[in-house]
Amino acid sequence: MLECAIIGGGPAGLSAGLYATRGGLKNVVLFEKGMPGGQITSSSEIENYPGFFDHQKSGMEFMDGWMEQCFHFGLKHQMDEVTSVQKEGDLFLINIPNKEPIKAKSVIVCTGSTPKRAGIKGEDEFFGRGVSSCATCDGFFYKDKEVALLGGGDTALEEAYYLSNICSKVYVIHRRDGFRAIPATVERVKKRENIELILETTIEEIQGDMSGLNTLILKDKNGNLSELHVPGLFVFIGHNVNNKVLQNKDGSFICKTNDLGQIETNLKMHTSLEGLFVAGDIRADAPKQVVCAASDGAIAALEVISYLQERS
Amino acid sequence: MLECAIIGGGPAGLSAGLYATRGGLKNVVLFEKGMPGGQITSSSEIENYPGFFDHQKSGMEFMDGWMEQCFHFGLKHQMDEVTSVQKEGDLFLINIPNKEPIKAKSVIVCTGSTPKRAGIKGEDEFFGRGVSSCATCDGFFYKDKEVALLGGGDTALEEAYYLSNICSKVYVIHRRDGFRAIPATVERVKKRENIELILETTIEEIQGDMSGLNTLILKDKNGNLSELHVPGLFVFIGHNVNNKVLQNKDGSFICKTNDLGQIETNLKMHTSLEGLFVAGDIRADAPKQVVCAASDGAIAALEVISYLQERS
Repeated sequence: MLECAIIGGGPAGLSAGLYATRGGLKNVVLFEKGMPGGQITSSSEIENYPGFFDHQKSGMEFMDGWMEQCFHFGLKHQMDEVTSVQKEGDLFLINIPNKEPIKAKSVIVCTGSTPKRAGIKGEDEFFGRGVSSCATCDGFFYKDKEVALLGGGDTALEEAYYLSNICSKVYVIHRRDGFRAIPATVERVKKRENIELILETTIEEIQGDMSGLNTLILKDKNGNLSELHVPGLFVFIGHNVNNKVLQNKDGSFICKTNDLGQIETNLKMHTSLEGLFVAGDIRADAPKQVVCAASDGAIAALEVISYLQERS
Repeated sequence: MLECAIIGGGPAGLSAGLYATRGGLKNVVLFEKGMPGGQITSSSEIENYPGFFDHQKSGMEFMDGWMEQCFHFGLKHQMDEVTSVQKEGDLFLINIPNKEPIKAKSVIVCTGSTPKRAGIKGEDEFFGRGVSSCATCDGFFYKDKEVALLGGGDTALEEAYYLSNICSKVYVIHRRDGFRAIPATVERVKKRENIELILETTIEEIQGDMSGLNTLILKDKNGNLSELHVPGLFVFIGHNVNNKVLQNKDGSFICKTNDLGQIETNLKMHTSLEGLFVAGDIRADAPKQVVCAASDGAIAALEVISYLQERS
């Protein structure tokens, strides 16, 4: 019987494990099929994690130290993929393919969300070397440079505006003539001097060299090809919320979600189901920043400790 | 005219400054009378800030690197004490004694809260060297050791229970015969084998040597003195919320607060007053952890950027 099952091994899950074990919980297991670390391990440089300002260290090296810290206090790692979580009475069942379900008194789900890729030739090759899905994280690396952005929704245009405060120019590439964003946002972006809209256009290929992305091959509605020379491309075509673990067989969820499938939570990371907590990018209103996921994990673990106390 | 005024220079304020300036805001000032850094600078060791696991570094050294990072992106520091913040129309006035009010388009208040001291002889001398006001932060340093705790409210008893998961024994010292905590919490604490209640007793003096606290001089209701030999004392007699800056002259607040005087906020650190944000220990439900204050600051800054975009 686990005191706490943590599902997902990114910054939120690791931080939850640190706070749960350092807070005296004895039997805490983090379930993550592969190595923990999360999306951040694919970053070549991190400069916005407060207190960590070392341009020599990659995301992978950063997470190595983090993991050592978390496992130091007794967190265990089980390399299994959890397929679903059920509540039976006061207990949770953690379901893993071809194994007996594992019982846990509390659960923290930290499975995050995954930015959608556009499926463009060269996108995977240059992801993290010019292709990004996070303006807050990577915008500053293109200070006073020109960048391109792919997408036409609300988030895409808000991120374009965000980038326009930092970059000398932002090309917004969108396959349609109009935007799915709210009119006020569209107006603001259209008025902005250093944002240029390239409509009814797709990206045919992403090209570059050893030092990263340098050219986008664009295709307009008539099929004409052209080159756009930029060092950065931000892809904002949505996120897949990794919420399957909280889904019942009939497709409903064991706790409240919003329209996007993100888990509803309060400031204490409680979900609508007692004993079930969430942390990080899987929750509603998540800012999708490492420090915020880490904070969520800490809060969820402290709340688990209180929750178990109340039942002891 | 400032784009954003940040009031308070602890982890929340510094992190807000990092995210605001790195996000492209040009004129951002952090107001803090002394050196920034916050409460954490008085810690001799930090081991629960995720990703930072260096037993050689003190809180002061940790915050030095953090400050360098924040100021690197253009944050300015003004060494003034802000006495109050007012909103006039769409703008905020930042009031400083003997100076013209400073205008700002948005404000993030990060003035935190201050744990109350009991006023015991030796308390200040051994604060950070055996005397603590944070079980989550410092409890683990007393793993399998005996500690004492002073206080009789809800938080005090919850923290006693938290410590009892880590420490071999917890002495709860309380000057009254009964507790102000909710009955269920009191029952739980009374049942706990490794918690011993020492009631109708005060701490007369805190004694120790170069390596820290080692003895408490206790005084019972009859005036009899005795010694308790412990390496740690946790003082939980409440916090002063540093909310004066948000108070009107008539004592009311410019935004919603709870019964404890903490500022009400949503998951995005919005207060009830448009353009005013909070971050860190000043807010309701704050977990009072460095990583959580840092996250709050990041969120508040990202929300300030959105807020200013919508008005541009």
